[in-house]
Amino acid sequence: EIAPLVEDELQRWLPGSGGEPSRLSEAMRYATLDGGERLRPGLLLASCEFVGGNRQLAMPAAAAIECIHSYSLVHDDLPAMDDDELRRGRPSCHVAFDEAMAILAGDALLTHAFQILARAYATETELCRDLVCELAGAAGSGGMVGGQALDMGSSGGRTESSLEKLHGLKTGALITAACRMGALVGRADENSLLAVTRFGRALGLAFQIADDLLDVEGSRADLGKTPGKDEQGGKLTYPALLGMEGARRRADELVREAEAAVSEGGGAESSLVAIARFCVERTG
Amino acid sequence: EIAPLVEDELQRWLPGSGGEPSRLSEAMRYATLDGGERLRPGLLLASCEFVGGNRQLAMPAAAAIECIHSYSLVHDDLPAMDDDELRRGRPSCHVAFDEAMAILAGDALLTHAFQILARAYATETELCRDLVCELAGAAGSGGMVGGQALDMGSSGGRTESSLEKLHGLKTGALITAACRMGALVGRADENSLLAVTRFGRALGLAFQIADDLLDVEGSRADLGKTPGKDEQGGKLTYPALLGMEGARRRADELVREAEAAVSEGGGAESSLVAIARFCVERTG
Repeated sequence: EIAPLVEDELQRWLPGSGGEPSRLSEAMRYATLDGGERLRPGLLLASCEFVGGNRQLAMPAAAAIECIHSYSLVHDDLPAMDDDELRRGRPSCHVAFDEAMAILAGDALLTHAFQILARAYATETELCRDLVCELAGAAGSGGMVGGQALDMGSSGGRTESSLEKLHGLKTGALITAACRMGALVGRADENSLLAVTRFGRALGLAFQIADDLLDVEGSRADLGKTPGKDEQGGKLTYPALLGMEGARRRADELVREAEAAVSEGGGAESSLVAIARFCVERTG
Repeated sequence: EIAPLVEDELQRWLPGSGGEPSRLSEAMRYATLDGGERLRPGLLLASCEFVGGNRQLAMPAAAAIECIHSYSLVHDDLPAMDDDELRRGRPSCHVAFDEAMAILAGDALLTHAFQILARAYATETELCRDLVCELAGAAGSGGMVGGQALDMGSSGGRTESSLEKLHGLKTGALITAACRMGALVGRADENSLLAVTRFGRALGLAFQIADDLLDVEGSRADLGKTPGKDEQGGKLTYPALLGMEGARRRADELVREAEAAVSEGGGAESSLVAIARFCVERTG
């Protein structure tokens, strides 16, 4: 439902029609438009509504976080990283363009996210600062990139707690940031901000477990990326650690935890809850 | 003179002592500490003083812009980009670590720059927004990364004006941003901001011409990187376009133009002018 709105917003902010280098703009657009489940923007917008905010005001922040997510996929797919030639059912960015352009498009999208925030929230400077701080903290060495570095660096010898830590950084930090940024745009009070933070943390982990399960069970067509990469890469996953059934139970448990965090008897949590359920029930 | 101060400031902001992934932190520190001419931080601090600001307040912005510059070197040196194994007289980041870690360290440094700005200028939210906007604009697809993409994409058939455009983006934008960010921290009025902007644009181009000259004349030991890369890569350079003498004359002319932009009869422009002269007279 929100995917076309996010697509429009990204179109609005991405370079392309101006006087900028066209191949770079093309690669940036290729990496962000026409695809993706738009989970992080969806969470951001739903979280804004949950705290009583106006979804329209959160659209630029939603575009910014999707730029970060898209850049991370472009760089993750590079030969020196996960080396994946398929993404969102199409050739990965470095296959469609080339490695140099994929590195640069990723760099440009990462930078662009902060430019969107600075421009879109220019008249609300405290909010602007909070959003930049939240996004940079979640995306950088203390968040997503830190988790990716942990993931590249180690193999084997992991416990459930070290796996939780890794995924808390690699995928959880940005998912939690999506929820928190939406709440910040919606001028949430302390309690609501805490509620969406707890929601985001539980959901982030549930999402990763579901991702691990899909990597085992999913098809190339459903996933739009290459399945079985985890096992090939010798990576410890939740199914390997807890078994398929155990992993599924853990994901369900986490979704209930996420739901509980935002269950206040009102109705505004419904889209957050719907997204949470979708995350663990999706097939691709 | 300012190099040890910048080093201390980077030490203060870079991850490493906390609980973060240690190999990533090491790579980030390797890429930023113990080296570099610190031109951009130097310009930022000198520009802040030039407009009458307090240099101490500009230190975090100086660290942030050096994070951006350092990340760009790490990514530029990658095999898929300029493929250079030597940087600042040491093995490039991807040689000292590996390619994946160099990609991630670059991503983390880029992200970190914005985190530094959001944290250091948290209480001055308008300044914070202006600095984020300035840095993101200069570093992204409309600036440095856009210039790098142009540089990778094309070869031959260039005129002096297309070369100026390329370098205006690739190196000029960040050098100009350094000057402007310093002036913003120093609460410059419109005239002073315009003066340092003109100064930065002229100096950025002069710097690039000097760089081209060094690539022809410099030694590996002086440069701390591999000379002769431009000719090898078939890149159009100023010496190729104007001859060595012509390029040297053009650089001198641009430095005089830069000096004129900040010459107001006072004394505060002296360190900007000193940096400008150093840029074209350096040997490494």
